[in-house]
Amino acid sequence: MLKLYYAPGTCALASHIALQEAGAAYTTERINFKINQQNSPEYLAINPKGRVPSLVTDRGILTETPAMLAFIAQSFPHAHLAPLDDAFAFAQVQAFNSYLCATVHVAHAHRMRGARWATEESSFADLKRRVPQTVGACFALIERDMLKGPWVMGEQYTICDPYLYTIAGWLEGDGVDLAALPKVADHRKRMSERPAVQQVLAEEQG
Amino acid sequence: MLKLYYAPGTCALASHIALQEAGAAYTTERINFKINQQNSPEYLAINPKGRVPSLVTDRGILTETPAMLAFIAQSFPHAHLAPLDDAFAFAQVQAFNSYLCATVHVAHAHRMRGARWATEESSFADLKRRVPQTVGACFALIERDMLKGPWVMGEQYTICDPYLYTIAGWLEGDGVDLAALPKVADHRKRMSERPAVQQVLAEEQG
Repeated sequence: MLKLYYAPGTCALASHIALQEAGAAYTTERINFKINQQNSPEYLAINPKGRVPSLVTDRGILTETPAMLAFIAQSFPHAHLAPLDDAFAFAQVQAFNSYLCATVHVAHAHRMRGARWATEESSFADLKRRVPQTVGACFALIERDMLKGPWVMGEQYTICDPYLYTIAGWLEGDGVDLAALPKVADHRKRMSERPAVQQVLAEEQG
Repeated sequence: MLKLYYAPGTCALASHIALQEAGAAYTTERINFKINQQNSPEYLAINPKGRVPSLVTDRGILTETPAMLAFIAQSFPHAHLAPLDDAFAFAQVQAFNSYLCATVHVAHAHRMRGARWATEESSFADLKRRVPQTVGACFALIERDMLKGPWVMGEQYTICDPYLYTIAGWLEGDGVDLAALPKVADHRKRMSERPAVQQVLAEEQG
């Protein structure tokens, strides 16, 4: 039985949706960021990075969203969440997810998590001011070049879709105008209509 | 025939070494960062993100180091650069590479690339000052919990090794003391003795 550690409003939502879409047998445990539970000794024993998500498996614990998403796709091949028999197509999926993880999520994180990289209040304010522009530029590229439609990779729904949906859910908070991103907005709407997404959101927001 | 776009001193080194270790037939083209060639119209047509590496294949162009490394491992299975038949072990490889990409490389980038996320000179200085601490903390975790030895994943050399070697090569510049990282230093030495690494470095530094 898999167990997902998550916190509402975080990138853990992507893996949570993917587990649900895969039809996996899994349980969840919520980590309370308000009391800094992600840095408690108990949770650091699970994930010494003090972040969510973490996925407990029979073999050990996995972290890092792109790795977990590929693991879910490979572990539940009947769900067809990635092109597992085509190294190039699989690499395209992974390249998209890596961009979300290492560039888009990182750009977003500078709004609230400036203390990861800076110490001065003036720096935090500066980092925060740029977020609409940096996240906006990332999403302009996604809109123009990456999101094939109707799903990220085209006709086939993949592990890219819950991840894009998760990070696109932060756009309003990041001060990016969704009106300039019709394909992303359409994708978000289409995702929100999927039963798996609705079930996961009901749990996370419950 | 594969073609790798790279620039010396960048994370492209990881994919370059992996191609060499895989015995791949490939050519390379150097992008000159000093004249901002990564943002030239010609290069942006290859990679609209204006970054290296990019890997041109018969099927199209791939970007993002973790995706390219997994692609190389899957495309040249006889080189045994990743545990391809074990989803959990493969996810461990990917989790390590994702951490290097989205956390360690990002921490490093705040030394020279503050303009990606900030606008003020005072912010750039602040970001730069924290790099020894942030990169140092990442590598302390790698040293303590992640690098199994002799290779990252233990006895088997994988795509994690050229990637760690690449980013560990920035430690002195980032102001991190290698004396506190004996396993990382040992790994770097062991990597530098591999013929594939020596061949690639001779080309990149030539």
